[in-house]
Amino acid sequence: MGLNIRAIVKTLSLMLILIGFSMMPSLLISVFYGEYKTAEAFAKIIFPVLATGALISSQIKIIPHQLKMREGFIIVALSWFFASLIGSLPYLVTETVDGFVNAFFESVSGFTTTGATIISNVEILPKGILFWRSFCQWLGGMGILIFAISILPALGISGQRIARAETPGPTLNKLRPRMSDSAKMLYYIYAVFTISAISLLILGGMDPFDASIAAFGSVASGGLSNYNSGIQHFNSAYIEFIASFFTVIACINFTLYYSIVRGRWRDFFKNSEVRIFLLILCLATAIITADLWLTGSYNTIWESLRFGFFQSSAFITTTGHYSTNFNIWTSFSKMVLFILMLIGGCSSSTGGGIKVIRVIILFKLIKRSFHVKLHPKAVIPIKVDGKIIPPDTMAGVMSFFYLYVFVFIASTFILSLENLDLLTTFTATAAALNNVGTGLELIGPTGSFALFSDFSKVYLSFLMLMGRLELFTIILLFTPSFWNPDR
Amino acid sequence: MGLNIRAIVKTLSLMLILIGFSMMPSLLISVFYGEYKTAEAFAKIIFPVLATGALISSQIKIIPHQLKMREGFIIVALSWFFASLIGSLPYLVTETVDGFVNAFFESVSGFTTTGATIISNVEILPKGILFWRSFCQWLGGMGILIFAISILPALGISGQRIARAETPGPTLNKLRPRMSDSAKMLYYIYAVFTISAISLLILGGMDPFDASIAAFGSVASGGLSNYNSGIQHFNSAYIEFIASFFTVIACINFTLYYSIVRGRWRDFFKNSEVRIFLLILCLATAIITADLWLTGSYNTIWESLRFGFFQSSAFITTTGHYSTNFNIWTSFSKMVLFILMLIGGCSSSTGGGIKVIRVIILFKLIKRSFHVKLHPKAVIPIKVDGKIIPPDTMAGVMSFFYLYVFVFIASTFILSLENLDLLTTFTATAAALNNVGTGLELIGPTGSFALFSDFSKVYLSFLMLMGRLELFTIILLFTPSFWNPDR
Repeated sequence: MGLNIRAIVKTLSLMLILIGFSMMPSLLISVFYGEYKTAEAFAKIIFPVLATGALISSQIKIIPHQLKMREGFIIVALSWFFASLIGSLPYLVTETVDGFVNAFFESVSGFTTTGATIISNVEILPKGILFWRSFCQWLGGMGILIFAISILPALGISGQRIARAETPGPTLNKLRPRMSDSAKMLYYIYAVFTISAISLLILGGMDPFDASIAAFGSVASGGLSNYNSGIQHFNSAYIEFIASFFTVIACINFTLYYSIVRGRWRDFFKNSEVRIFLLILCLATAIITADLWLTGSYNTIWESLRFGFFQSSAFITTTGHYSTNFNIWTSFSKMVLFILMLIGGCSSSTGGGIKVIRVIILFKLIKRSFHVKLHPKAVIPIKVDGKIIPPDTMAGVMSFFYLYVFVFIASTFILSLENLDLLTTFTATAAALNNVGTGLELIGPTGSFALFSDFSKVYLSFLMLMGRLELFTIILLFTPSFWNPDR
Repeated sequence: MGLNIRAIVKTLSLMLILIGFSMMPSLLISVFYGEYKTAEAFAKIIFPVLATGALISSQIKIIPHQLKMREGFIIVALSWFFASLIGSLPYLVTETVDGFVNAFFESVSGFTTTGATIISNVEILPKGILFWRSFCQWLGGMGILIFAISILPALGISGQRIARAETPGPTLNKLRPRMSDSAKMLYYIYAVFTISAISLLILGGMDPFDASIAAFGSVASGGLSNYNSGIQHFNSAYIEFIASFFTVIACINFTLYYSIVRGRWRDFFKNSEVRIFLLILCLATAIITADLWLTGSYNTIWESLRFGFFQSSAFITTTGHYSTNFNIWTSFSKMVLFILMLIGGCSSSTGGGIKVIRVIILFKLIKRSFHVKLHPKAVIPIKVDGKIIPPDTMAGVMSFFYLYVFVFIASTFILSLENLDLLTTFTATAAALNNVGTGLELIGPTGSFALFSDFSKVYLSFLMLMGRLELFTIILLFTPSFWNPDR
């Protein structure tokens, strides 16, 4: 088949080591809070995982090698799959989650920053487990392979190719020639945001543990909480605003922050994707605020604005946070939330969904098609920020859209086997595929995914992975032609 | 602006005459059933309409002229708009429908073969009105302009261009060089189907009036009935089957029947679109039948098959007929119906929706994109029936799809202002845009569109026209660049 199996196995073994080390903070937290049984469970997982990883890794001398396209896809898909698999062990060993399917769902939901949960009462969980659950989001937020590349430059073998399969959205501007430098830069920025968020949340009166959980949920666009009522628990407009602020910040293209670091502020503010992203957020907030206020859903316009902004930002960033029961909002406001969750964040950010840049390009395509109807022979390239989008990027955006619509409809069809009401079914698909984690009706703010059957939970897990890796990386592995490259 | 206003006005005045004459059968029916007030109302409309049409028409000597693209769009859009406007007069003059908005909605619903209704009790309507309501569907089924061209060859001025703006789906095979001959051929076939349907329904025990109404509803994919309970009224599997049969027949590309007439049977049976259309219908029937039977929705497998086939064919053909309350079916079966209504019939047929050929092309695009992910430099043309789809047809299919998804989401957003449940709102959009006329929940088999506000009824009327004329023809007229061709 001509696949470089050794390079694939080597990378996966390094991933094992990485995930093993990633559990260390959770172990320390468990010890700190005197949860010795949980700490023991983490130790029981970490050491075999590290040993296995080290053993396999030491057996394979990596050969400097330009990875093939197919190898890149396999590495990315399997890395995420194995990370989720190992990530589910803490739930199983501590018996905090019932059965493998539930544990796997919870783990995938974390890594993919979906933030959907099957745990109805999270407040009884050990702190070590709660930390792990939220830390998975943080690891997945910028991409676990980009994380790996940032700390293991050796992995940089054809890192561009790996990064492309993992980075959300079409890449219009490259960072730096050396992938490991780019990956480091992304993680520096990400770490700065995380630490800032934790600090500002502590200033708002949260203890450091709660603040860390809330910060991970925000900067990773995950939205998992250590309280059953989510961010509502704190009932603080300040905390809600800080959470929203960082979730919005983290949904902007990270390469633009690098521009700011280099003093090129104009790149940031002249970027169409950021501008449209913020414009949509403002518009949605205004519409929902007006609707909530006019229909008397809240007493004051200020309260309408508070919840309008919070839920708008929670949905466009695909975080899925909630600070109020929006299930009882008008259909109009709920429809706005639904549209926001489809759009999602900017490319190269922690946000999920279709991505703002793709929506912009699709709109430009629609606009162009009107012109072409009247002038059939006109050839008009699509430009964003004054630059012509190259044909392969255009083709990628178009085919992503067809596949997205197809996967959306097919998934709703599969999930409708549950015979839940169709709005729950529809938004469950949207919540998983766009990595939002919260939908409407039964999986709204007060609901959980526990009501789905094991079959659907496994399907939803794959849907979350498909969404996080932008469909092709996962689905390609299930196509016969992927394994018959000569055809 | 360089528009040939005279050619436009001339065509519209001929349309006036045509619609005037089209009301004659309804007048005769009224007289036949002794409904003299209704007959008088028709007479009061017909003569001024004919006189106006004749007067304007006689003032304009048509200049043989190759119509511009823009003129074609204007003629088609305005013809449908004026036909709907005049078509609403009988409801208003007889005061059978309350107010202009309702009358316009009912008229558009007829001409566009949507078959949505705002009349909750149709059984009290005069027979002349019921006949007009259903006859509008028949006129709209194959296109009112194609009808005009078939009987007024003088209209054939650049008939191709007009026909293209009115014919559903991308045209892959042309009929004959002279448009008026093609139009005649289409209407011959259409008439044969209609007469066959009426005859077979009479054989099933229906009186000629009921049979005509049911036949118009079937062959035009409209689905309007003269009974409140629709086809359920007759409670006859035979009648249901005949109605389904003709609705399926009428949703197959009419140019293929022309091939059969010329003895080229193979063209028909080797056509991918027809084969996939029938395959989807069979699959959907099998899935729904199995689901209904296994969940015990009906007592016998035979009953499950009867209703499974009837509703599957009613939805894929966008007829919107109902013979059972499918609102109480499982979410799974309802999801199948929903998918069918999106797909719709074949191109160049009376069916609405996205059209099977577009779905085929989109699937081929998805399949190709997988290949391109692995072989970025591969150039693979999309073929259907062994022929490469020309680039402009491909571009048309793609842009239709983007626009379709956009209009769908935007319309659901607009209709959600009604604050009805989102499933009703969602399926109302689908029912209007795809010209189905029946949705789920409040607009399901037992519901009517009367519950919408005037604003939404007007919007839904435009949505039906947009759907019937495949989006561009209507929307183009609202774009500034249409009126500024020099830009």
